[in-house]
Amino acid sequence: MTAIFLITARDERSRARAGVVQTAHGAVRTPVFMPVGTRATVKSLTPDEVRDAGAEIILGNTYHLYLQPGHELIARHGGLHGFMRWDGPILTDSGGFQVFSLVYGGIADEIKGRRPAHPTAQRDMVKVTEDAVIFRSYLDGSRHVFTPERSIEVQHGLGADIIVNFDELPPFRAGYEYTHASMLRTHRWAERCLAAHRGRTPAHLPNPAQYLFGIVHGGVFPDLRRSSAEFIGNLGFDGLCIGGSLGGDKTQMYEVVDMTVPYLPDGLARHLLGVGDVDDLLEGVARGIDMFDCVSPTRLGRHGTAHVRDRDRRWKLHVGNAALRDDPGPLDASCTCYTCRNFSRAYLHYLLRAKELLGIRLLSLHNITFLLNLMADVRAALAEGRFAEVYEEWLGKPLGKDVTPEH
Amino acid sequence: MTAIFLITARDERSRARAGVVQTAHGAVRTPVFMPVGTRATVKSLTPDEVRDAGAEIILGNTYHLYLQPGHELIARHGGLHGFMRWDGPILTDSGGFQVFSLVYGGIADEIKGRRPAHPTAQRDMVKVTEDAVIFRSYLDGSRHVFTPERSIEVQHGLGADIIVNFDELPPFRAGYEYTHASMLRTHRWAERCLAAHRGRTPAHLPNPAQYLFGIVHGGVFPDLRRSSAEFIGNLGFDGLCIGGSLGGDKTQMYEVVDMTVPYLPDGLARHLLGVGDVDDLLEGVARGIDMFDCVSPTRLGRHGTAHVRDRDRRWKLHVGNAALRDDPGPLDASCTCYTCRNFSRAYLHYLLRAKELLGIRLLSLHNITFLLNLMADVRAALAEGRFAEVYEEWLGKPLGKDVTPEH
Repeated sequence: MTAIFLITARDERSRARAGVVQTAHGAVRTPVFMPVGTRATVKSLTPDEVRDAGAEIILGNTYHLYLQPGHELIARHGGLHGFMRWDGPILTDSGGFQVFSLVYGGIADEIKGRRPAHPTAQRDMVKVTEDAVIFRSYLDGSRHVFTPERSIEVQHGLGADIIVNFDELPPFRAGYEYTHASMLRTHRWAERCLAAHRGRTPAHLPNPAQYLFGIVHGGVFPDLRRSSAEFIGNLGFDGLCIGGSLGGDKTQMYEVVDMTVPYLPDGLARHLLGVGDVDDLLEGVARGIDMFDCVSPTRLGRHGTAHVRDRDRRWKLHVGNAALRDDPGPLDASCTCYTCRNFSRAYLHYLLRAKELLGIRLLSLHNITFLLNLMADVRAALAEGRFAEVYEEWLGKPLGKDVTPEH
Repeated sequence: MTAIFLITARDERSRARAGVVQTAHGAVRTPVFMPVGTRATVKSLTPDEVRDAGAEIILGNTYHLYLQPGHELIARHGGLHGFMRWDGPILTDSGGFQVFSLVYGGIADEIKGRRPAHPTAQRDMVKVTEDAVIFRSYLDGSRHVFTPERSIEVQHGLGADIIVNFDELPPFRAGYEYTHASMLRTHRWAERCLAAHRGRTPAHLPNPAQYLFGIVHGGVFPDLRRSSAEFIGNLGFDGLCIGGSLGGDKTQMYEVVDMTVPYLPDGLARHLLGVGDVDDLLEGVARGIDMFDCVSPTRLGRHGTAHVRDRDRRWKLHVGNAALRDDPGPLDASCTCYTCRNFSRAYLHYLLRAKELLGIRLLSLHNITFLLNLMADVRAALAEGRFAEVYEEWLGKPLGKDVTPEH
């Protein structure tokens, strides 16, 4: 398949680059943050609001949509684009992460390395064989089998512009041996996904022009990451994701990126899966990442937290704090979103305390806009050769200290 | 105070009339339905959405706003208009209904006569004296005292364009004697409210141009309704509400309206409190009602019900019904709302089943638009002398059979 990614600018002091990803539903300027519409909706927001907030691409979750309402139904209603009325680019993940993470509480955090598995977590609710993953639905406990071919078939039905190969998600603490074996299996699955997809999105389906991205694994082990980057990077995918365990903290995550990116082909877009903290976005861009996605802006919004331009608060403000009760100012004075243009902290504080749905909406919209504006600033800075300036402005430290430049 | 209500058209075959209510925040064309923003938000919707749906006035609930966040705080933030960013007309109720209805489950329905009080209902959580109502907060059980003067003071702080006198809400089954005594006390409170308000909204408060409406009581008893209509109607209020128990079913409610309206001064606007079913709106207009409010469109939306133009379904469709699972059509083919212009029944069905907030939003918006469009049709029909036509079109029966014309 022809190249879908065009690099338009590079930073001289880091691996950061700007570019454009071309899809059947329009162009995506990178580096990009994509809001997550897990279940065919970016939670609490309309597609128009997401678009007006500046989103150029969103992510949908194959696992959830396969279980409810099902990819066949979505295909009958014009694919995800038609069903949820988002006419811009969409990326669907492979279902792998959720198959492994939604079994019982705690697994998701364990995979990501943030904490040990919950004692009641039953990983044996998921069975992995060479051929397939057998799992039970988080909705009703029903039994399902996902093979690489099935994941691609489901994603064909959903009709996203970018689809992703099916992978196994070994937990952070799986150790070298298991992580290695799992990576090799994911590599074999990657070949099966490519074979199942190449040039074959059935023409009767809503979006025959789907690109397939591959996922690099290898956990926190440098030799595995390099080997996976080289294998997946040269297999013929249209773009690449960095997946699997990204370590137990931010430092380790940046190390994982640093041990991976140098071995990826320069000409393919790189997506760091599930990352969306303000500092992680900037550090990711500096390390050569082009695409990010995360549920955090809407999840934070539902829990009453708003992004603010305040490094000392880690860019987060708990809007339910009593200090905001009588505050007539906007959430963030520098923000241009509908929420900040119209509503006071006092009103938002009140809505959250009163558990009014509008509070969740307004915070979700603000948080998404905030991250999208951050990425727009980053893109503008890259185009104008002043990425280091924006990086330092946000993070309060010079660029380059922790980042190895690529050239 | 000068007349705020101008009648612009009358129907020849019923008591229906069209008019305009002038307020400091703009004009309201009647007959009008006002969406309810109980707690400074029309649930799940932004003020812009409510305005774009066609709302010219909304209602806020004094009781809830007094308890949280408090009228002093709201006054500091520009009154309800500034706090919630609704720059059109607002009406606040007196707090009476909620003081009496929110004690324990079941009382609200009992007041309205829909069913007997719940056995665990403890009306003694509310104590009524000649001077005041002592009640406990539904939020934290704290003790509060509302006098007529206090209700007016709170409503001055909220700053609605139309405020309402404080009243006692005797239950449907209170009997003649109690209803009579309660009505007389509400009449004395009406005089105190007028005395507390007349020309006296303190100038430092957000909206010094507030109109005060009086509430007619008398339960289901013709002589009490007539006596209350004549007393309240001639006391000097700027407009009138029909409150208290409206009977045990729709027929009895229409009877209560019929036994009240003929004794009200023609020149004052008439608001039937808490009514919003499609047939009740049309029957109310035919009986001379100018203003309606009800939580039903947003409440139905939160429970997965959409208004549809289908008399056989009582204008209601349960969107969670399996029959809608694969339906590509809009909720209502005749509807012009954002939801119907953009989303399929299949998608809305899915959102509700998946318990996604967007489903609630889209249904609430549709339901509000549906009722506002109905009232716009009614107003146009009145202006063009064809109200009977619209009445029959919706209700499937000729106008006039059950309605006594006024002249």
